[in-house]
Amino acid sequence: MMDSAQLPVDLQAIREAAKLIQTDILRTPMVEAAELSDRLGLSLRLKLENLQHTGSFKPRGALVKLASLTAEQRQRGVIAMSAGNHAQGVAYHAARMGMVATIVMPAQTPFVKVDRTRRLGANIVLHGRNISDCAEKVREIVEETGAILIHPFDDPAIIAGQGTIGLEMLDDAPDLDVLVVPIGGGGLIGGIAVAAKAIKPDIRIFGVEVDSYPSMTEALQGLPPSSGGETMAEGIAVKTPGQLNQRIVRALVDEILLVSEKDIERAVQLLIEGRKIVAEGAGAAGVAALLRHGDRFTGERVGTVVCGGNIDSRILGGVLMRGLVADGRMVRLRTEISDEPGVLARIAGLIGDTGGNIVEVYHQRLFQDVPVKMAEVDSVVETRNADHVADIIRRLTDAGYPTRRLGDRSRDDPQTG
Amino acid sequence: MMDSAQLPVDLQAIREAAKLIQTDILRTPMVEAAELSDRLGLSLRLKLENLQHTGSFKPRGALVKLASLTAEQRQRGVIAMSAGNHAQGVAYHAARMGMVATIVMPAQTPFVKVDRTRRLGANIVLHGRNISDCAEKVREIVEETGAILIHPFDDPAIIAGQGTIGLEMLDDAPDLDVLVVPIGGGGLIGGIAVAAKAIKPDIRIFGVEVDSYPSMTEALQGLPPSSGGETMAEGIAVKTPGQLNQRIVRALVDEILLVSEKDIERAVQLLIEGRKIVAEGAGAAGVAALLRHGDRFTGERVGTVVCGGNIDSRILGGVLMRGLVADGRMVRLRTEISDEPGVLARIAGLIGDTGGNIVEVYHQRLFQDVPVKMAEVDSVVETRNADHVADIIRRLTDAGYPTRRLGDRSRDDPQTG
Repeated sequence: MMDSAQLPVDLQAIREAAKLIQTDILRTPMVEAAELSDRLGLSLRLKLENLQHTGSFKPRGALVKLASLTAEQRQRGVIAMSAGNHAQGVAYHAARMGMVATIVMPAQTPFVKVDRTRRLGANIVLHGRNISDCAEKVREIVEETGAILIHPFDDPAIIAGQGTIGLEMLDDAPDLDVLVVPIGGGGLIGGIAVAAKAIKPDIRIFGVEVDSYPSMTEALQGLPPSSGGETMAEGIAVKTPGQLNQRIVRALVDEILLVSEKDIERAVQLLIEGRKIVAEGAGAAGVAALLRHGDRFTGERVGTVVCGGNIDSRILGGVLMRGLVADGRMVRLRTEISDEPGVLARIAGLIGDTGGNIVEVYHQRLFQDVPVKMAEVDSVVETRNADHVADIIRRLTDAGYPTRRLGDRSRDDPQTG
Repeated sequence: MMDSAQLPVDLQAIREAAKLIQTDILRTPMVEAAELSDRLGLSLRLKLENLQHTGSFKPRGALVKLASLTAEQRQRGVIAMSAGNHAQGVAYHAARMGMVATIVMPAQTPFVKVDRTRRLGANIVLHGRNISDCAEKVREIVEETGAILIHPFDDPAIIAGQGTIGLEMLDDAPDLDVLVVPIGGGGLIGGIAVAAKAIKPDIRIFGVEVDSYPSMTEALQGLPPSSGGETMAEGIAVKTPGQLNQRIVRALVDEILLVSEKDIERAVQLLIEGRKIVAEGAGAAGVAALLRHGDRFTGERVGTVVCGGNIDSRILGGVLMRGLVADGRMVRLRTEISDEPGVLARIAGLIGDTGGNIVEVYHQRLFQDVPVKMAEVDSVVETRNADHVADIIRRLTDAGYPTRRLGDRSRDDPQTG
């Protein structure tokens, strides 16, 4: 392990950052997660940065960076390139400090994100198809206006700001054995690792990446980034982690854990249902890592950061519905019937008798692989659990209506879209 | 105003309750709600009892009551009648204290609630169609077993337990001018009112009821309860408020505010999207009251209790989708087309050109009120806002495809069910 004195940020810088942000940043709560702890056989505490202003931890670093600018720099205004939480963090504090903030986003950015950032007072420039196009536009604007670029993660002031989370976690829970921290560009884990290892050298620190974007893992191995694809954890879907953060992670982080898209989706669902906490995909990555790798930490005191809660309502609704399907609490059935009056009522009655609640029914004959006097009915039914589903299928089949369950999580199920 | 010395609970009892529950109850956080505060023109802080063990404030009172039982009473076990948060609160602490807990629920109680309470270690008795049937069953079991009935709200120990929330709120935010507290049976507001008025006599306290269950309002006026009907705030849908709590409310509560079902739904949505907080209907009632009556509190420091987060995932998914529809971010359009090849692609292209994202399409001709060579297409489109919707409609109509928007929140929209 490298001597941490050589690292770009030290405990002193983080303590100063903490003093600086004291009045303008929420000191977010740490809460126990009793049910999850029992299930995982460890003691889990969650740092709720989803409750931070703008719904993520990003305003911490942004404020520290903005406060470090000279009067002349502030005059020139600031610029950032982000469609997400960094944009909001910068916009929020720039407005409060009276600076002009320009945020460059890809042209196809969802309106909700554009609108939310604009309402925080920033000038929004929509440009190009992706982040490289945006980068070019940023260079252009910087040349024209002299605006100061606020990097989302590869900057000592940003890292020090995010590190204040580590101070607060160990202040509230000095007995933690392990920290599990999501990695995107690495600013969050970089800051937290410096703070935590300085205060408690024997604490172990684990990073988390989604398996479609294992950029830090690869960077540390000297591999080019293999990353790409769609993920609901867009907050940690970063292709190139920060140079400064790579140095810190190499020196202070014990290991990086990978999680799948499904782990993340399950974690979002469990946080909502079990703990009443709204996390975005990246915000749930720490819990996802414990769902997958929890047996590595049996009996230990583990802290993780729910680092953001900015999840689109349509995505969240979809996750909840898919969770019901996965738990056997919502099911789609296909039943063969003879196409004569009264049969639909009979089927509905049989399902109702078992306590199943019919949510939707589809009944049509044109495109079905059955004889012309037969038909199929698809029904979406709210059920109690997998046993209940089996019971419904058996009753319908026994009554002369062969029934089968249609695929879980299938794309053609309108409830799971 | 009545002398509070005559009330069934006093500050001393609540302070003792606080000491008693110290280690087994989460001291839940109070958080600012900056965006909501700005919108409402006041300073709002939220007490997050949705983060409490079992997802509601109920374990506080339950623990105080259970702890007050004699060894002989504990031996006999406890019984409660509830399909909701009280059941979980009693089950949770009875199990931890080694007592047998029996919970009587109506036979039709959703499986999730039964299962959650059973997993907390209680014996569940499913009986009858409603709470009166359950009450009869409870009497039977009490006669047979001698089990001690734990009332959900009309008991000094329960009230003192819930009152600890008032202590914590004023401890964390001594400058509050106003408290806004949901009322079901009245145990929560009863305890909080006693604590808050004793500590800070000039604080004003407002109750909140949903307009379909204005039971406390009516009880105070000597009217019989007019309440009834479906509400998503089932946690405060109580027909007969507690006698003890009526006395406290009469003495200490300034006024009861009524909210509509729509206010509650909107509050649930805003808490999720704006504050990343999962509230059940009753838990969002305080925020709902501020959405409706906020102008009464302009410039004041207001605290409210998000008293529970146990909302069914299907209901929550529905609220989120309806929120998108209400905000013009999801819309269902009906377009008249000539029924010939290529038209559907043309329409989809026109919608896509405006940046609208087509989520679902329905195209059929059998049951439509159009000439036989014409057809209608219904599409569900994700949009930016109401202007964007108008733009899409204009473009389609101008291109020769008359289009109209189908009703918001209509029951026949599968996305909003």
